[in-house]
Amino acid sequence: MRAYSELSKEELKKLEQKLFLQYEEYKAKGLKLNMARGLPSAKQLDMEADFFGILFPDSSFISEEGKDCRNYGELTGIHEARKLMGDMMEISSDNVIVFGNSSLNVMYDTVARSMILGVCGSTPWCRLDKVKFLCPVPGYDRHFAITEQFGIEMINIPMLETGPDMDLVEKYVNSDPAVKGIWCVPKYSNPGGVTYSDDTVRRFANLKPAAEDFRIFWDNAYCIHHLYDDRQEKLIEILGACEEAGNPDMVYKFCSTSKVTFPGSGLAALGTSKKNLDFIKSVITIQTIGPDKLNQLRHVRYFKDINGMREHMKKHAEILRPKFELVQKRLNEELGDLGIGKWSNPVGGYFVSFNTLPGLAKTVVGMCKDAGVVMTGAGATYPYKRDPEDSNIRIAPTFPPIEELASALDVFTLCVKLASVRKLIEA
Amino acid sequence: MRAYSELSKEELKKLEQKLFLQYEEYKAKGLKLNMARGLPSAKQLDMEADFFGILFPDSSFISEEGKDCRNYGELTGIHEARKLMGDMMEISSDNVIVFGNSSLNVMYDTVARSMILGVCGSTPWCRLDKVKFLCPVPGYDRHFAITEQFGIEMINIPMLETGPDMDLVEKYVNSDPAVKGIWCVPKYSNPGGVTYSDDTVRRFANLKPAAEDFRIFWDNAYCIHHLYDDRQEKLIEILGACEEAGNPDMVYKFCSTSKVTFPGSGLAALGTSKKNLDFIKSVITIQTIGPDKLNQLRHVRYFKDINGMREHMKKHAEILRPKFELVQKRLNEELGDLGIGKWSNPVGGYFVSFNTLPGLAKTVVGMCKDAGVVMTGAGATYPYKRDPEDSNIRIAPTFPPIEELASALDVFTLCVKLASVRKLIEA
Repeated sequence: MRAYSELSKEELKKLEQKLFLQYEEYKAKGLKLNMARGLPSAKQLDMEADFFGILFPDSSFISEEGKDCRNYGELTGIHEARKLMGDMMEISSDNVIVFGNSSLNVMYDTVARSMILGVCGSTPWCRLDKVKFLCPVPGYDRHFAITEQFGIEMINIPMLETGPDMDLVEKYVNSDPAVKGIWCVPKYSNPGGVTYSDDTVRRFANLKPAAEDFRIFWDNAYCIHHLYDDRQEKLIEILGACEEAGNPDMVYKFCSTSKVTFPGSGLAALGTSKKNLDFIKSVITIQTIGPDKLNQLRHVRYFKDINGMREHMKKHAEILRPKFELVQKRLNEELGDLGIGKWSNPVGGYFVSFNTLPGLAKTVVGMCKDAGVVMTGAGATYPYKRDPEDSNIRIAPTFPPIEELASALDVFTLCVKLASVRKLIEA
Repeated sequence: MRAYSELSKEELKKLEQKLFLQYEEYKAKGLKLNMARGLPSAKQLDMEADFFGILFPDSSFISEEGKDCRNYGELTGIHEARKLMGDMMEISSDNVIVFGNSSLNVMYDTVARSMILGVCGSTPWCRLDKVKFLCPVPGYDRHFAITEQFGIEMINIPMLETGPDMDLVEKYVNSDPAVKGIWCVPKYSNPGGVTYSDDTVRRFANLKPAAEDFRIFWDNAYCIHHLYDDRQEKLIEILGACEEAGNPDMVYKFCSTSKVTFPGSGLAALGTSKKNLDFIKSVITIQTIGPDKLNQLRHVRYFKDINGMREHMKKHAEILRPKFELVQKRLNEELGDLGIGKWSNPVGGYFVSFNTLPGLAKTVVGMCKDAGVVMTGAGATYPYKRDPEDSNIRIAPTFPPIEELASALDVFTLCVKLASVRKLIEA
C-alpha cells in the first residue's frame, strides 16, 4: 500500500468512506476490550498458585536472623527479603529497605517526606517558593500525578533512543537549585521501552546538582521483565555509578514484585545510600510498625533466591511474548507503509508506545472508546496530561487474552487509519 | 504490712538494707525479661496456624463483587473486608477504607496529608504558624511521636476515670483555632485501661471547634480486646454520635487486627464520614496502587464475619487473662498496703498503668533495667517523653510467658519498694 500522504483527495475520500463503514461495523459489535493499563493477565496470575501454600502447614515463621515474622519488629524488612530485593536491584542488602506492597506508595512517601521534613536535613520543600521536577516524556502517568498533587512544577524532557535528553537534564539540574528531582524508568521505559544507554547513566551519575537535596527517582520497575532471554538489555547499576562519581547520595532506586508475583500483594523496595537510609529510617520508625514480614517470608521461600525469580520471569515472558509479537505484527500489517504512525518495539517491560500524526491521539483514543476499546487516556504520558503534539498513545497489551487483543488491535489500527485519512482530507 | 510513710527513719534504713540485698541477688541472676511493649505472645500467634492455609489450595481469588484479588484495583479495599472492619468499628462499610498492615501508618498518613494538603480544602497545616494537638495523658507514645515529628505542639490533658478531662478539652477545642486534633484511645486506653464514659463521648460529639479542620483521632485499638466476656465495657459509637450532634465530619476512627491476627500482617482500617472519605480517596488514588487484597481475603475467609472474630478474641483472652490477673495479684501482695504505688486494673486492652511516688518512675525503670527487666521507658506515656510527675510506668504483661512475667514482677515490685524507701529516707 502507498503512504496516505501520497494519495489524492479523491482517493482519500473513497478510503474514508470504506474505513468509516468498517468502523461502524465494529461499533455495532458492542465490544468490551481493554488495552489501558499494565495489568498482568489471569494466566500469569494463575502461575503462582503454589505461592499460597508456602507458609502452610507447619511452617517455621522464624527469619534467618531468628525473628518471629508473625510479631512486631524489623522496620526495614527481614534480612533475606532485603537480600532478595537487593539482588533484584543489583545492590547490597545493606542499602535496601523492603516496604509494603506498593513501590508507588514508597515513591509518594519519599516525595511527601521531602515536602514536610526535607532531605537529610535540607529545608522542607513545602517551605520553598518553587520546587521543580524533570519529567522525561513520554513517561509514567502515576509519577507525574504525584508531583502534580504536591504542586511541584514539572518540566518536560524529551526521551531519545538513549534515554532522556541529557544535555537538557544537565542544563536544568546543574544550574537551577529549584530542580529537586527527576522521574526515571531506566529500563524498558514506560511507555517507550527504552533502556538508558551506558553514556546516559554515566552522565546521570556525574551530574553536579545546584540543589544539595536533588535526587534521581530511579524507578526500575521492569528490571527483570525481559521478553526474550537472549535479547536482555543491560543497564548500568546507578547507585554504584553515583558513588564512583562522588555523588553517593544522589539516587533513590525503587523496585517491586508487582509484576513478578501479584499486583497489590507483592513486595516493594527502596535502594539508596547509607546516609539516605539512616534519614529515612529515622522517619519511618515513627510512621509505621513495619512491613508485612510474613509476605516477605512467603516471597523468599517461594523463589529461594534471585535465580529462582529470574527463572520465574521466563514463564511470564512466555505468556507475554506472543502478545507483544502480535502487536508488532498487526501494526506492521495494517499501518506499516502508510506513514501515519510510529511505534516502539520493546524487548521488555509492559508497553508499546505509539505516535499518531500530530493532533490525532485524543481523536483516536475517543474513537476506540466509542467502539468499545479502552486505551490509556491520550495525554496521560505527559505531565498535566498535556501532550504538546497530541500524538502519543500508550498500548498495554498484557491483560487481554490474545484473541481479545487481536480484536482490540483491529479496532485501534482502523481508528488510526480513519482519523489520519480525515486529517489529510482536511489538510 | 504498714504503709512506708508510717515507718521511722530507722525502720526505713533497715528495710533499705534488706531490699538492697534482695535486689543485688536479682541482679546476679542475669535475667533477661521484657515488659516493655504490647506484643502478643508466641502462644497467641500459634493459634492462627490455619490462617495460612486459607487461600490454598484451589481457592477462588474472586471477591464478592467479582474482582480478582490477585490483580490491581479496589483502592478502598474489597467490600467484604470493609464490611468486616466496619462491623469491628460498629459503622457501615460505606464509611470504611481498609488500608495496609498498620493503623499507625494510617494515622501518620492522615496527619501528613493534613500537613501538606490540608483537610477537605482547608489551609495545609504546614503553612500555618502554629498547629496544636491535645494529648490525653498518660497516653500512647507512638501517637505523640507522630505529632512531635511534624512539629505540632502537644498539650497535656489529664485522663480521669471517665476519659480525658472534658472541661479542658472543650476549653481548648472551642476557643483555639490552632488546635487541630486530639489523640484518643477511647476503650481500654493505653496505658490506663479507661473506657470513655457515655457523657465523655457525647461531649466529644458536641464540641464546637474553633477550627473547621479540627478532627478527633479516635484510635479504637482495643475495641474487641476484652479480657472478660461478662465484663465487657461499652463505648458509644462516635461517628454516629458526631452525626447526631451536627458534627458529621469531626472524627477519624482507626482500628486494626494487629492484635487479632498478626502484628505486621493484619488489616488496618479508617472509618469516617463520606465527605472525609471522598477527600482521602482523592489523595490516596495518587499515593498507592491500593491495599493487599489477598490479605484482606485471607482475613475474611478465616473469620467469616464479626462473630467469628469475636469468638476468636475469647481465645486470646484466655491466654491474656491469667497474665493480667497475675499482675494484680503480685502488685497487691507486694505493694497493696504500702502506699507507694497506684495502678489500674483493666478488663481489656494490653496494659496496666502504674504510678510510683512522685519523681521515682525513671529511677524504678532504671533499676529494673540493671536487674535485667526491660520496662517501657519512663516518660514514654507523655508528649516529649516528659512526665511532669516522673511517676507513670506502663506495664506490658502480654508478651512474656507467665513464669517469666512472675519473675519480672518480682523485680519490678522490689525496685518500687527500694526506690520508695530511699526517697522516704531522704525526705
